[in-house]
Amino acid sequence: MKFARYAESLDVSYIREILCTAGQPGMISMAGGLPASSLLPVELVRATCESMADNPSLFQYGNSQGYGPLIETLNQQSITDKPWLICNGSQQALDLIARALLEPGDKVVAEVPAYLGALQAFQLTGALVCPLASHTTGPDLDQLESYFKAGDIKLFYSVPDFHNPTGRVWSMETRIAVANLCRHYGVTLVEDAPYRELRFAGEQLGLLSDLCPEHSISLKSFSKIGFPGLRVGAMSGPAEFISLAERIKQATDLHTGIPQQAIIHALLNHPAFPEHLTRLRRGYQDRYQHLSAELTRQLGDRITFDTVEGGMFIWITLTEGNSSDAAARALQHKVAVVPGAAFYPAGSAKEDHSLRLNFSNTDPELFPEAVARLAKAL
Amino acid sequence: MKFARYAESLDVSYIREILCTAGQPGMISMAGGLPASSLLPVELVRATCESMADNPSLFQYGNSQGYGPLIETLNQQSITDKPWLICNGSQQALDLIARALLEPGDKVVAEVPAYLGALQAFQLTGALVCPLASHTTGPDLDQLESYFKAGDIKLFYSVPDFHNPTGRVWSMETRIAVANLCRHYGVTLVEDAPYRELRFAGEQLGLLSDLCPEHSISLKSFSKIGFPGLRVGAMSGPAEFISLAERIKQATDLHTGIPQQAIIHALLNHPAFPEHLTRLRRGYQDRYQHLSAELTRQLGDRITFDTVEGGMFIWITLTEGNSSDAAARALQHKVAVVPGAAFYPAGSAKEDHSLRLNFSNTDPELFPEAVARLAKAL
Repeated sequence: MKFARYAESLDVSYIREILCTAGQPGMISMAGGLPASSLLPVELVRATCESMADNPSLFQYGNSQGYGPLIETLNQQSITDKPWLICNGSQQALDLIARALLEPGDKVVAEVPAYLGALQAFQLTGALVCPLASHTTGPDLDQLESYFKAGDIKLFYSVPDFHNPTGRVWSMETRIAVANLCRHYGVTLVEDAPYRELRFAGEQLGLLSDLCPEHSISLKSFSKIGFPGLRVGAMSGPAEFISLAERIKQATDLHTGIPQQAIIHALLNHPAFPEHLTRLRRGYQDRYQHLSAELTRQLGDRITFDTVEGGMFIWITLTEGNSSDAAARALQHKVAVVPGAAFYPAGSAKEDHSLRLNFSNTDPELFPEAVARLAKAL
Repeated sequence: MKFARYAESLDVSYIREILCTAGQPGMISMAGGLPASSLLPVELVRATCESMADNPSLFQYGNSQGYGPLIETLNQQSITDKPWLICNGSQQALDLIARALLEPGDKVVAEVPAYLGALQAFQLTGALVCPLASHTTGPDLDQLESYFKAGDIKLFYSVPDFHNPTGRVWSMETRIAVANLCRHYGVTLVEDAPYRELRFAGEQLGLLSDLCPEHSISLKSFSKIGFPGLRVGAMSGPAEFISLAERIKQATDLHTGIPQQAIIHALLNHPAFPEHLTRLRRGYQDRYQHLSAELTRQLGDRITFDTVEGGMFIWITLTEGNSSDAAARALQHKVAVVPGAAFYPAGSAKEDHSLRLNFSNTDPELFPEAVARLAKAL
């Protein structure tokens, strides 16, 4: 069999390989991006699961746009009236966006380091990723404008809240400036916001996409606040775009499954859902504080890191040495972390002095030992 | 926004439009391809749904290949050792095949009339569909060989059991001849078999793909024997291909949801599953016999049709007149059917003297009235 060019060029993800290793006995893994299993809100959907078989219509074919009651819930929560399309996780939204908008050779701007799953979805269409420098308050605006000025940028992919892997949050000033640039240059903005609801400190800022609604596509994930295993997400955007994305989705998998959408609908509408979010945020804050205290205590001036106000990751920078080597040595010491170099588009220049540490999925009692092992590896 | 070329050229499916109309009050629809809602095996998975919340690990991220126990069940049922990949229905398998193997301008052979969802998945990659004439015992072998001889065919898409829309089954001789041709010319065969288990008369024939395992990809649907609403299907194929398809799937939606795979696993392993299949086949046989008797009684020599031994469709041919006009008049008389012209690739020559009638989803008590309305429209 001869494989299609862009498909064949898809790398096996380093993160995926490390996750295989991370499952070995005795390994402490801070490599993944999983929510805490103990905080999954299964009790809030128990009744829905239990009564599911009483409702056979959930098991019949549904429509491509999504399960009506779930779309209704999303409409109620939106401040714009842009239509929604339910997807198999927000990862599928990225794929549908790429397929609806990108041709081989088209250019997409993304902050680097970046979420690999987005880069892969873009690369599958043959698009090119233009790397954008990232600062603590958001992307480099001068560089962004110089990209836009060249006139051939199709998309700007952004994660303004608790960026993966850096954990950074864009300031309000940056959001306003980016929205203005997208509007001025007519560039479509994609706002990926899977960690947005995981803020445990500081003040929630407005959605970037709401600042330029006519130029933006908004992604919604239920994997970090609900259940990643169901694979349900959503996106909203200009009507003409959502209509095309829905036609592509139909050719792709007809529709997202209905029982899983009914479970997410039940979760979002459960009276105890706000309480679950509070518990989740407190749990992650607690884990974050434990891990960051251990990092400071045991690694001291061998690393630097910015505080985070939410999300799932700490991004530490080594004062000396290369992080790919450090991550490889860490595996030998039975602790898994992801080196910064893994978060760059294939073939681009990579910064390799940082490590991504996940704090949401590890039992916090293991943090002292995890950091002790990391200390031996650095 | 400027849309990508092949995405933009996706037609709004005529069938989809007719299905909207078919939902109008008072309409009797034989237009869809849905299983009977009353025969969905919800009781066989009730216990699994009820205990789902006791197993939070089902709600966590899973792996891209699929849920281990479901893959194990599929392995046990296979006569080859080709690996499996779980997909969001077999529609996603078609999409992954297209993305793994097809480049713009590549050629795919498909019997026409054909399943539109497959044509759309191929068209989305920019591939061209070469139409192959279909006879009652299967495709035209001379035409198939002349396509293969030209040397530029990437895929042959086949539905050998209860073809949609014609309901035809390929003879064993045809299967052997096609397998030999695929082997001789090195063409990859895709065997789509969603209706295969719905045989209610005659003798089950071997899978075509098992006759040329090294050149074939096999699709598995659980939508016709289980639950379409869950969107779970599977495919097996050569290891190198499945490995690439899995990488593409990861970039597409990470993995198929776990709870829905656990439900399908429970269904396939339920001791009463064989009994469900027997009941389903008898139910469809009964519906088929009712509908075909009414067609003969009320329409007599105004139509011809071949008997079918399974599946969900009767393909009737008008002795006079155009079927698109007849289907449009039928809608005015409040009965929905799909004209044959809807099942051809965009831009190809269309035969327009036949209508597809679905017998699985309509209450059989409505058949006399449905056919009476159709009689007025012809």
